[in-house]
Amino acid sequence: MAERLYLYDTTLRDGQQTQGVQFSTGEKKQIAQALDDLGVDYIEGGWPGANPTDSAFFDEAPQTRAQITAFGMTKRAGRSAENDDVLAAVMNAGTGAVCLVGKSHDYHVTAALGISLAENLDNIAQSVAHVVAQGREALFDAEHFFDGYKANPAYALAACRAALDAGARWVVLCDTNGGTLPGEVAAIVTEVIAAGLPGDHLGIHTHNDTENAVACSLAAVDAGVRQVQGTLNGLGERCGNANLTTLVPTLLLKEPYASQYETGVPRSALARLTKVSRMLDEILNRVPQKQAPYVGASAFAHKAGLHASAILKDPSTYEHIEPSVVGNARIIPMSNQAGQSNLRRRLAEAGLVVEKGDPALGQILERVKEREAEGYSYDTAQASFELLARAALGKMPEFFEVKRYKVTVERRKNKYNKMVSLSEAVVVVKVDGEKLLSVSESLDETGGDRGPVNALARALSKDLGRYSQVLDDMRLVDFKVRITQGGTEAVTRVIIDSEDGKGRRWSTVGVSANIIDASFDALTDAMNWKLLRDGAGVADAV
Amino acid sequence: MAERLYLYDTTLRDGQQTQGVQFSTGEKKQIAQALDDLGVDYIEGGWPGANPTDSAFFDEAPQTRAQITAFGMTKRAGRSAENDDVLAAVMNAGTGAVCLVGKSHDYHVTAALGISLAENLDNIAQSVAHVVAQGREALFDAEHFFDGYKANPAYALAACRAALDAGARWVVLCDTNGGTLPGEVAAIVTEVIAAGLPGDHLGIHTHNDTENAVACSLAAVDAGVRQVQGTLNGLGERCGNANLTTLVPTLLLKEPYASQYETGVPRSALARLTKVSRMLDEILNRVPQKQAPYVGASAFAHKAGLHASAILKDPSTYEHIEPSVVGNARIIPMSNQAGQSNLRRRLAEAGLVVEKGDPALGQILERVKEREAEGYSYDTAQASFELLARAALGKMPEFFEVKRYKVTVERRKNKYNKMVSLSEAVVVVKVDGEKLLSVSESLDETGGDRGPVNALARALSKDLGRYSQVLDDMRLVDFKVRITQGGTEAVTRVIIDSEDGKGRRWSTVGVSANIIDASFDALTDAMNWKLLRDGAGVADAV
Repeated sequence: MAERLYLYDTTLRDGQQTQGVQFSTGEKKQIAQALDDLGVDYIEGGWPGANPTDSAFFDEAPQTRAQITAFGMTKRAGRSAENDDVLAAVMNAGTGAVCLVGKSHDYHVTAALGISLAENLDNIAQSVAHVVAQGREALFDAEHFFDGYKANPAYALAACRAALDAGARWVVLCDTNGGTLPGEVAAIVTEVIAAGLPGDHLGIHTHNDTENAVACSLAAVDAGVRQVQGTLNGLGERCGNANLTTLVPTLLLKEPYASQYETGVPRSALARLTKVSRMLDEILNRVPQKQAPYVGASAFAHKAGLHASAILKDPSTYEHIEPSVVGNARIIPMSNQAGQSNLRRRLAEAGLVVEKGDPALGQILERVKEREAEGYSYDTAQASFELLARAALGKMPEFFEVKRYKVTVERRKNKYNKMVSLSEAVVVVKVDGEKLLSVSESLDETGGDRGPVNALARALSKDLGRYSQVLDDMRLVDFKVRITQGGTEAVTRVIIDSEDGKGRRWSTVGVSANIIDASFDALTDAMNWKLLRDGAGVADAV
Repeated sequence: MAERLYLYDTTLRDGQQTQGVQFSTGEKKQIAQALDDLGVDYIEGGWPGANPTDSAFFDEAPQTRAQITAFGMTKRAGRSAENDDVLAAVMNAGTGAVCLVGKSHDYHVTAALGISLAENLDNIAQSVAHVVAQGREALFDAEHFFDGYKANPAYALAACRAALDAGARWVVLCDTNGGTLPGEVAAIVTEVIAAGLPGDHLGIHTHNDTENAVACSLAAVDAGVRQVQGTLNGLGERCGNANLTTLVPTLLLKEPYASQYETGVPRSALARLTKVSRMLDEILNRVPQKQAPYVGASAFAHKAGLHASAILKDPSTYEHIEPSVVGNARIIPMSNQAGQSNLRRRLAEAGLVVEKGDPALGQILERVKEREAEGYSYDTAQASFELLARAALGKMPEFFEVKRYKVTVERRKNKYNKMVSLSEAVVVVKVDGEKLLSVSESLDETGGDRGPVNALARALSKDLGRYSQVLDDMRLVDFKVRITQGGTEAVTRVIIDSEDGKGRRWSTVGVSANIIDASFDALTDAMNWKLLRDGAGVADAV
């Protein structure tokens, strides 16, 4: 029989300790909903009373299957639990579960709190008893547990026992400073359970300061704990917390965990994992980490030529799981290291079936090689690659032809004697034999200058005749520039990431010694790809 | 007695399998030098013959203490090692050590290579023997070792034995697909050594597909291997390789490793670790990962209020190591105590002596903070930092004032019906009370368009009155662009590297939503710094 393993998410509390991260109440609700849909058991929502956003979240907390949990600290010395206003604010959030952090490392009790060791044990016991007396589920976060255990094992255990004896459902062993290695976690948890603490009342909370947060969590489960704490995308103080986006699929898909344990997350929910991870990045306005395990855009990208050819025969040769299980996808990037089989695979992904041995394959590879020598890179710019291949195969319709463009960037004093910048772009295109002129400036709704590339994008899309409507839901989400070698000269390579209302995301590339030219080419590629995907009909479309 | 543990870096080979990464030969040399300075034992430089850049690197490889190693694959079936042209290209690189990858998983031998199991063992033995016969040190990368061992342990061991018996110094156990968990690595390595393979001839090569690459490497060392492979910043195929930037400090600073093992990296070299990590990001034009263990900008950032106040009493309360040991620094958002001494050191480097407690220090810190919130970064842009500090200290002369500028970028057909681009820049400045207008276009000597930033740089420097001569020997050598967060908006950050005839090289930064504006600001900073250094006299100069 599989044993139950509980998942405790602290994205909204410890995750918010990430430098630069501050969720709004609405964002907290959105994340809580996604976590609940996934199937975690606990959602730690924040510290009620510590800041207005956290307090507001508990007031408006969504209805969830998961236990919404309020975080706080054990009562201070010299007052009763009932009379501690900080604890009262936590209780007032009215959650079914309350998690209180307290000291389990003797040095911290005396040096940081400045109270006696006995007083601290009493604070733990009284606080937990208070939570339980109010009919809530009590959790105790044993702060600095591993460092504390190394310094004074008897005291660290006594702190945990104080919480358990007072009725805590869980005592969570925290590696607060993140310096404990997996071997130590395994050894200490084993000792703790041997000393009588019940594994099915123990949790693990790790940090990634040595890149071992996931491994330490697994080691603790191996040694007997039954609750795992972590955050989405590994957010958290300093180097982050244990990454649930990695831990959850590992626990569900990998042995011995898959057979040995059961969690609240059904296997089918994993198919949403990549989406949930990207949603969080979207909220944080962060570029998703390409190399993130399971959910990163590169997690199933096979660049090495040897790998790519074997993948075509059997994906399991170079993949530890099937990418679709976690909602991700395989990528075989195009580069001059890759051969024809790689190319065919990539063409097939774009719906272009080309027979083995077709001379067009050689032409496409040749063209890719030439362009890479000019500074292009099709590794990430899949959409530009597809356009290039279609052109070589005679399967690229000409939606529009750019006759000329002109951009002006100006900085001068305005009438208030303040320096202001303004860009203006004029684009002349031919669509269905008709010449169309379009002009746009770079100011956004607030009057701020968004620069020449923005002005060009607007001018280009706003007056493309019947295509303008198709491009309406498209927007630029990222813009990357690097100087690279194009033949003997330094050139600018621009990669543009675009998105549309259908949730598609695609990358295009442009190269030129002139950064505006390079941007313009990446832009027109992005638009052509969008028109292609949305089946914008043209007379000679294929 | 401490046992010797060998560090093998594959940033230049497996690291180059990262999506979007393609080093130039010069960059490879720069990275190799940094790795050698750090003290790794082996530097895998690439696959000679596989692509021109790798071949060129071996032709021009720097003199290193570390063993520069060429990578290749075991000979193909049906020909002798002497007659395998792929292997010959690897041998021709002339390196002291050669690492050949070969199959150790029976399924891959029959399915991917399509040869018999015996033929594969023969290929391994013959290839290794060939390397050894030429007086080189031979390494064998046992591809898919862990998956292979699980499927057919006898065959996986036989592949390793074939290499060892033929004289391989090292057999590297590779978790090629990255799916093996630390517990499995520990168990399998233990069995392998019990089966007679000598631990001091075994290496470990892991990938981060479950975020356990570091933990699996440590588990393998615990079980007895004595060589660890990895990459700087964890670059590598898919989710990356084991991160040496994390593993090296862990092995040197943490128990039981610190006492039990000795590596080629002296503890003092760790102080350069953060710099080396940032240098690699700089080369790749990547934003450094703030949450990276040990070297990330947030690795020692204490955001939680409880933590920050304890840190002031004793940093060890919330830090697993002292940040300066790895060349990193503590960040306490609420306190600028630590900031001021850092700042004074940096000012002194620019020849600006400011006394402790001078209120100007607080003002400069405040100004840097404000600008960083707008998207500026003074990490690398030392020259811009110096200008900012001088302005705050009242020690920045105004050489010239820019009244306005205007740049036009145009693409159109020329009289030969060929699309051409041209940029033109007009700059209006005031020098010594005199208004000067200057115009320049973007064409170089060959008639090629060098873009709007180039046109601006020329227009600005060519007519600055008596300063133009001082700027004569200055040129732009690099130009990096990143999209970053400036307040609530995405902005462009431009870093310009400049050089002059005196061999100076300096970096400046500009930030704006408008890429031309950002470039222009970085340009004017570059010129101001040059004028300052060359003592261009002005009436109010200090």
